[in-house]
Amino acid sequence: MQVFKAPLRDMRFVVHELYDSEELSTALGFEDATTDLIDTILEESAKLSEQVLFPLNASGDLEGCHYENGVVRTPKGFKEAYRLFCEGGWTSVASGAEFGGQGVPESVAKLVEEMTCAANMSFGLYPGLTHGAYVALEAYGSQVLKETYLPKMADGTWSGTMCLTESHCGTDLGLLRTRAEPQDDGSYVVTGSKIFISAGEHDLTENIVHLVLARMPDAPKGVKGISLFLVPKFLPVDGGKPGPRNGVSCAGIEHKMGIKASATCQINFDESKGWLVGEKHKGMQAMFTMMNSERLSVGIQGLGVAEAAYQSAVFYAKDRLQGRSLSGTKHPEKSADPIIVHPDIRRTLMTMRAQIEGCRALAGWVARALDRAAKSQDARVRQESDDFAQLMTPIVKALFTDFGFENASRCVQIYGGHGYIREHGVEQYVRDARIAMIYEGTNGIQALDLVGRKLPAHAGRYLRSFFHPLSDFVEANKNDPAIGDFVKNLGAALIALQMATGHVAQEGLKDPEEAGAAATEYLRLFGLVALGFMWARMAKIAAAKLPTAGGDAGFYQAKLATAKFYFDRILPEVGSLLAAIKAGKASMMALDEAAF
Amino acid sequence: MQVFKAPLRDMRFVVHELYDSEELSTALGFEDATTDLIDTILEESAKLSEQVLFPLNASGDLEGCHYENGVVRTPKGFKEAYRLFCEGGWTSVASGAEFGGQGVPESVAKLVEEMTCAANMSFGLYPGLTHGAYVALEAYGSQVLKETYLPKMADGTWSGTMCLTESHCGTDLGLLRTRAEPQDDGSYVVTGSKIFISAGEHDLTENIVHLVLARMPDAPKGVKGISLFLVPKFLPVDGGKPGPRNGVSCAGIEHKMGIKASATCQINFDESKGWLVGEKHKGMQAMFTMMNSERLSVGIQGLGVAEAAYQSAVFYAKDRLQGRSLSGTKHPEKSADPIIVHPDIRRTLMTMRAQIEGCRALAGWVARALDRAAKSQDARVRQESDDFAQLMTPIVKALFTDFGFENASRCVQIYGGHGYIREHGVEQYVRDARIAMIYEGTNGIQALDLVGRKLPAHAGRYLRSFFHPLSDFVEANKNDPAIGDFVKNLGAALIALQMATGHVAQEGLKDPEEAGAAATEYLRLFGLVALGFMWARMAKIAAAKLPTAGGDAGFYQAKLATAKFYFDRILPEVGSLLAAIKAGKASMMALDEAAF
Repeated sequence: MQVFKAPLRDMRFVVHELYDSEELSTALGFEDATTDLIDTILEESAKLSEQVLFPLNASGDLEGCHYENGVVRTPKGFKEAYRLFCEGGWTSVASGAEFGGQGVPESVAKLVEEMTCAANMSFGLYPGLTHGAYVALEAYGSQVLKETYLPKMADGTWSGTMCLTESHCGTDLGLLRTRAEPQDDGSYVVTGSKIFISAGEHDLTENIVHLVLARMPDAPKGVKGISLFLVPKFLPVDGGKPGPRNGVSCAGIEHKMGIKASATCQINFDESKGWLVGEKHKGMQAMFTMMNSERLSVGIQGLGVAEAAYQSAVFYAKDRLQGRSLSGTKHPEKSADPIIVHPDIRRTLMTMRAQIEGCRALAGWVARALDRAAKSQDARVRQESDDFAQLMTPIVKALFTDFGFENASRCVQIYGGHGYIREHGVEQYVRDARIAMIYEGTNGIQALDLVGRKLPAHAGRYLRSFFHPLSDFVEANKNDPAIGDFVKNLGAALIALQMATGHVAQEGLKDPEEAGAAATEYLRLFGLVALGFMWARMAKIAAAKLPTAGGDAGFYQAKLATAKFYFDRILPEVGSLLAAIKAGKASMMALDEAAF
Repeated sequence: MQVFKAPLRDMRFVVHELYDSEELSTALGFEDATTDLIDTILEESAKLSEQVLFPLNASGDLEGCHYENGVVRTPKGFKEAYRLFCEGGWTSVASGAEFGGQGVPESVAKLVEEMTCAANMSFGLYPGLTHGAYVALEAYGSQVLKETYLPKMADGTWSGTMCLTESHCGTDLGLLRTRAEPQDDGSYVVTGSKIFISAGEHDLTENIVHLVLARMPDAPKGVKGISLFLVPKFLPVDGGKPGPRNGVSCAGIEHKMGIKASATCQINFDESKGWLVGEKHKGMQAMFTMMNSERLSVGIQGLGVAEAAYQSAVFYAKDRLQGRSLSGTKHPEKSADPIIVHPDIRRTLMTMRAQIEGCRALAGWVARALDRAAKSQDARVRQESDDFAQLMTPIVKALFTDFGFENASRCVQIYGGHGYIREHGVEQYVRDARIAMIYEGTNGIQALDLVGRKLPAHAGRYLRSFFHPLSDFVEANKNDPAIGDFVKNLGAALIALQMATGHVAQEGLKDPEEAGAAATEYLRLFGLVALGFMWARMAKIAAAKLPTAGGDAGFYQAKLATAKFYFDRILPEVGSLLAAIKAGKASMMALDEAAF
């Protein structure tokens, strides 16, 4: 059975206690973002997620989207839910006030995103894509485009997409064929076919704003000849009303493993009218702005689905009676003990919990870095924060979505045979979670981004934004009586990460295939160490607050116990990852293609 | 795109080269099982699997089974495929000749099973369940029951089921409520409701033979009061024709995540007529005979799906053009290189390959042990072989099915977005593979079986059947110039396994929850060491044969390269598993139930 309550206590812990939220309203200039307002936002988001979005999750999966004659119908209830979502201002929660956004800090907005995705991942994609398009347009669009489109996207009246993929190219966008011909009026005529366009066509908004990668006639080959265009479904007239239909049509929707309530469209651009966004031939740059925002969001999707799966697993583990505790009957009044008494069920739940809370803490750090990068008065803080967000984006995307899928699968395992049956609802989490490992760049591509771009950038400068605070923390806390054991483990894991980093840097410099061969394990190792840092920090706060916590003592005790579990049971994977990395590419690349 | 060709070369390697198949026709008395006949069986099975079963895999998933008024219809083509399957004698390939079976050794039959499951896992369940029921009935049924039912089950005219689960009990069968009242004529009246009954109702056979767990009125509570009954859908008359309908009905089928062409039924027994199988109140013993056979078969399902997923992944990795090799363009004539040039794709394919071929080798060892346990002239060999099969059954079931799911997911990842789309067919492998980790005892239950039953059995005697040959091999080969490095790695992994075994034995004796806390990681560690042994043995053979292999040189070179990959990249997980095991139960069991 799908169950979901927003994990507000843990969210407040992250935003207020782990990363002091007063910084937001003081040093970072989000004047309205007081503790009280943040809590109100979280509570209101929780209500909407629990009461409006979550009840449509299973029904949306069952019904799916329907396509007929170019029109896409979302599942029952989605229109009304989207209306409520817009009315609450949630479409623009993280958008700036200039074009009508709420201007809420990312430190809070990312928690709102998590709730939305946990309650209904398919639903979350509609406003999620709009936000990504908003970010790219805000950064690269002309003033006219911004004034025409951003207010409509901020209030959710119009939605957005990103149109990259074509049937023959996804990762390798250099191969793309969609063309854009310049016109005398400064607009372009865009022609081509795109696939896998999330929210490409649907019935939730009066207009859809496509950001489309295409080539101009004089474009150089490869990715250096790609430009970005804005192509609306309806051409705006009269200062913002949808006017005549543009040459944009939906040729069909995909039948997918999951996220069935999200319309994944084939979109044809048939001499459609569009406008250049950013510079000619520099579309990839603008698209990466959007993509980086989306990659963090996809990571958050993984976290959200994992949280929903965890809660559903806990519900069943407490409800299902089967067998007796190995340490003696716990519920003699019942025909059997609930399965949560069994160590293997505990192991599963604790693994989920340790990963989820660790990821939430890491997401909070990245979100705060985004806020600092945008708003700090101190140029050095802005740069270090941006470095950190750049570095962690592929890790958040890949690690969180790997965990999302693993944890959805763990939930099914706890349900046993019942988990495999559609009516119980938890197999949906596995099907939904699976896509997040793929879209916005597969997790293998994230790993290559980490080793190939982020590590070498500015002679390794990005790395310092992570290694320095971590080393400082280890140094300062290794003899702390409350968390010293954790910190020693963390220090050892840091050394493993440094060795792996050295391997990737040295071997990768000699032979880029060596970096590629290490990439996936390196990203996971990095992520596990980052979560170890989070757990040590959370344990430190919990240990400090526990003596005077009163009614909150259980919360901090659980943090300490989960930290211990993380260091006992999850962090040790670092050792085997390092061994695999050090083995190098030889055996991986030994076989001829023909031998497969 | 789903592709499948039976991996005959590797199968012949396992049955002939890794485990000398001459033993079968000589020492073990399978006189017909000559090298030629074995190869013919494998080739014929390959034909049927590739040409008849495989083409129905995707269509069966799409169409699913249909239920109406108690009748279940299998997907289009299944009836004809089942007819061909029966005509070829495949329903009874491993059944003894006494009741019409083919008497093929398990060493060969398990390879046939793998092909069936790889081609069409849903289809394979119908004859698979029949075979499990056959085994239990042959071991425990009265002569009359055997003569009436076994020939019909051997030729596939009638199929079989195992009816254990009820809605409130699966793992904990002590809770079951189905009743059996003894009648004056020696039969029983069976009443109750069962769920999750694979092949419980369908249109492939003229009769269905249910083996049903139920309680007699005088039964003690718990699992010691359960008896096994044979309850046919139609009561046989005239020496083997289906006569009057028995009080057995299908109340519905489940809507499942996968294996949609396999009918998973709710079966009601409404004062149905049945006969006791085996002794009163000893139904669990008989059911375990069936279950052990089924558990190995489920492991083989995991292997089969992994093989199909691997082949589909290789197809796409060679076909899909995207990006250029990091070591320089490999296919300048094409718009891009096929993605198989990229290290991360290689890593994925090599991981699949190393796991799959390792599992096939281990399954071959277990299958040979079954043959020896049944047929050896030497009582000691029979006992050691039975010990080994007992020990390895939970490992084969859990490890192979975990790998099956992991590898199905790896295949989807190689396809990227296209893998998430139903039309490409590979997401089906993920959905199908998921059930194998659950049914016939969840993988968590397998781990408990390993640490709680198999390890302590006869004061650890079962373990010797594995540790002795492994230690002997390490001792004999550690200085072998061709495989000495592998063997040293294997020796270190063996020490880790011995340490883990010591931990489980000592701590588990003091506190059974400690064994439970270690169980899942222990099973995986054990499995990885067993596969390491397989890879070292395979490498030894490959190294010896390579110099004179001629046209087969590529096969042996690939074995050596894949062995190296296994030791480089997969076996190191042993270290982190040992660390997790040694951490014990403390942090796992620390939280109160209420804290979840």
